[in-house]
Amino acid sequence: MTDEINLGVTCDMHVHVRDGSMCEFVTPTIREGGVSVAYIMPNLQPPVTTLERVIRYKETLENIAPQSTFLMSFYLCGDLTPELVHEAASKGAIQGVKCYPAGVTTNSAAGVDPNDFSDFYPILKAMEEENLILNLHGEKPSINNGLEDGSEDIHVLNAEESFLPALKKLHHDFPNLKIILEHCTSEAAINTIHDINKDIKKVEDVKVAATITAHHLYLTIDDWAGNPINFCKPVAKFPKDKRALVKAAVSGKPYFFFGTDSAPHPLGSKARHVGVCAGVFSQSLAIPYIAQIFEHENALDKLRGFASEFGLRFYNVQEAQLRSKDEAILYRKDQVVPLIITSRDGIEIAPFKAGDKLNWSVKWRSK
Amino acid sequence: MTDEINLGVTCDMHVHVRDGSMCEFVTPTIREGGVSVAYIMPNLQPPVTTLERVIRYKETLENIAPQSTFLMSFYLCGDLTPELVHEAASKGAIQGVKCYPAGVTTNSAAGVDPNDFSDFYPILKAMEEENLILNLHGEKPSINNGLEDGSEDIHVLNAEESFLPALKKLHHDFPNLKIILEHCTSEAAINTIHDINKDIKKVEDVKVAATITAHHLYLTIDDWAGNPINFCKPVAKFPKDKRALVKAAVSGKPYFFFGTDSAPHPLGSKARHVGVCAGVFSQSLAIPYIAQIFEHENALDKLRGFASEFGLRFYNVQEAQLRSKDEAILYRKDQVVPLIITSRDGIEIAPFKAGDKLNWSVKWRSK
Repeated sequence: MTDEINLGVTCDMHVHVRDGSMCEFVTPTIREGGVSVAYIMPNLQPPVTTLERVIRYKETLENIAPQSTFLMSFYLCGDLTPELVHEAASKGAIQGVKCYPAGVTTNSAAGVDPNDFSDFYPILKAMEEENLILNLHGEKPSINNGLEDGSEDIHVLNAEESFLPALKKLHHDFPNLKIILEHCTSEAAINTIHDINKDIKKVEDVKVAATITAHHLYLTIDDWAGNPINFCKPVAKFPKDKRALVKAAVSGKPYFFFGTDSAPHPLGSKARHVGVCAGVFSQSLAIPYIAQIFEHENALDKLRGFASEFGLRFYNVQEAQLRSKDEAILYRKDQVVPLIITSRDGIEIAPFKAGDKLNWSVKWRSK
Repeated sequence: MTDEINLGVTCDMHVHVRDGSMCEFVTPTIREGGVSVAYIMPNLQPPVTTLERVIRYKETLENIAPQSTFLMSFYLCGDLTPELVHEAASKGAIQGVKCYPAGVTTNSAAGVDPNDFSDFYPILKAMEEENLILNLHGEKPSINNGLEDGSEDIHVLNAEESFLPALKKLHHDFPNLKIILEHCTSEAAINTIHDINKDIKKVEDVKVAATITAHHLYLTIDDWAGNPINFCKPVAKFPKDKRALVKAAVSGKPYFFFGTDSAPHPLGSKARHVGVCAGVFSQSLAIPYIAQIFEHENALDKLRGFASEFGLRFYNVQEAQLRSKDEAILYRKDQVVPLIITSRDGIEIAPFKAGDKLNWSVKWRSK
C-alpha cells in the first residue's frame, strides 16, 4: 500500500480568490491544500481587464502568499483590445483570458454572447499569436421557450453540452489557439475533448484541454438538490457523467488536468432560501480531495500527471517562474473536513464535504 | 375580459398541514387561498396509521378551520391491516391511503419499497373493495451505481419516470382500485396517464388520475438550482415537462386535477447550506397561482373543472360532507405575494413566488 507520493510542483489551473478580506483569507489556503501553482480567475467586480489591475492583483496575492506561484488572466469583454493583449503577454502579466458567457455564473454579467464570438476574433487572434490560453466557461444561457419536443430548450443540465459546438468552432477557426474547457461536467464534454485530441501524436501538439474539479468527481444532481453547499455552475450532472469525469481524470491523458474552480462564498450567501451563490470551496483540501478519488480508482500513479505535469506543460510554466520549488508530498493521514472555516475577521466558509473524513494529507518538501 | 369566475366548491387534493403550532398557522390558509375541500396528507411523525389518530387529527383541523372540509388519509406501511382499512372506510374516517417510497421526501422513512408492492396487496385489495383511493408519491429511490451507459441510474430527474412501470402494474393488478399519481412532474407521467385513460368512455370509469401542483406549472430545474424556496420532491424538471404539465392542467381532462402538495417548512429549514427540506408552500394563494397560469393559457373556462369538479368527482365528495357550501369566486385583483408570512408565535414561512405579483384574488359567496 502506497503511503507517500511525491506529486512534484502541483498546480490548480482554475482558482477564485476574490479580493479584499476574502482574498486575504483564502489565498493562503492554496498552499495549505497542497497546491503550488494557481491560475487565478479575473471575475472580480469590476472584472480584471487592465494591465495595471492584473499586475496589482498579482502583487497583492504574492504578498499574501509568498510561496505560491500565480498565473494571471484577463476577463474577455469589450474592454480588451488586441494591443492590450499583446502588451500584457509580452510583459508576462497574463497567461490567458477567461471567457464567461453573460449571466451564467458568479460575476459573469459583463461576459460574452456564446452564440457569436466573432466580435472577439481579433482578440483571439492576438492570443493565438502570443500563445495565451483561452479559458472557456462552457455553458450556453438558458432558453425556456423552445420547440414543443424540447429540442431547443437550454437549462442547467444541458447548458454545457449545448456549448460544445461553439468550442469546436473556436478550435476550427483558431487551430493553434490553446483552449481549455474549464470545469467540464458531462460525458458529452469528455467525449468531445477525447475526439478533438484523437489524432494527436505528440503531447506538445495538444491545443484543446479540459480542467476537472475535485467536487465534480464526487457530486451528482442528487447531491446539490437540497444542499446549496454543493451548488455550483456548471452544476453536477448525472451519475454517468460523474463516472466519465472520474475515468477522464485517472486516464493519464495529458489533456485532462486539475482545476478546482474553488469559489469561496460567505456562509450567508450559501445558506439562504433564494439566490444562493454558485460555487464550491475546495481550496483548503484540494489535493486530499482528489487523492481520495484516485485511490478509490486504484490510480494513485496517475495523480502526479493530473495534478502537476499536464497542467504545467499546457501552461508552459518554467522553473524560473516558480516562487517556490517545494514539492508536494501526499501522505496517508486521516483528516476530517471542518464544518466551517472562519477568518480572523469573521468570514465563515463551509468547505466541500464539510464533516467528512479524508484519507490523505499533504506536506511540503524542499527540493 | 373575464373579471369574475365562480369556481364552485374548490378542492385541493394534496395538502400538508403538519401538526402543532405549524398546523394552527397553515390550516386557515387553505380557505384563504381559495380552497374549500382539502385532502390531508398523513406524513406526520410518527405517520398517521390508526383510526384514533386520524379521527383526532381531523377534529383538530375542523376546530382550527370550521369552514374547511377535510378528507383524510392513512400512511401506507406495515402498521396497516385489511381489517383496519375496512373499519376506517366504513366509518368514513379516511378517503384514501398515501404511499411513500421509503426515503424520497419529507417524513417518508417509514414508507414502502416501490420495487415490490406485493406485501401490501391485501391492503390494496381492501382499499379496492372500499372504493378508497391509493395516493402514490411516484418516485423510485436513487441508484448511483448503474451500468456504464447510465441506463440503470436513478436520480431526482428520472425518479418519477422510473416509477411509471410500477404505477401501470398496480393498475393492472387492481383494475378497480382508484389510484392517483400525486404531484406529477414529467411529460412521461402525463403521457402515461393519458395512455391509461385513452379508452375511457364515461368519466365515472376513470380509475387512474394525477394531481398537478401550482408550483410545477411555473418551475423548471433552473428555478430550484440555487433557490431552495423552489426545491421540492419530486423536483421540477425540464421546460418540456413543464409545458406538458400546463397542457394537461388546462386540457379539461377529468383525470388531471389540482393538488398543491403545499408543504410548509420554517424558513430556517429552507435557508440553509445543507439538508434543505423539500417542499413549496403555496397554500395561502393556491387558487390565484393557478388562475394566473390558466389565464396565460387562455383557458380560464377550464379552471373550474381542474380546481373543483374533477377532484370532487374522483373522490366522490357528497354535498352532505361539506362543512361549507360557499363558492369560491375568482376575481381580478392584483396582489403581491408576501416575502415572508409569520405566525403569532413567530414561525416564518417563505411562500411560493415570494415578492411576485399575481393578477387574481378569491372571495367566498354563500350559496
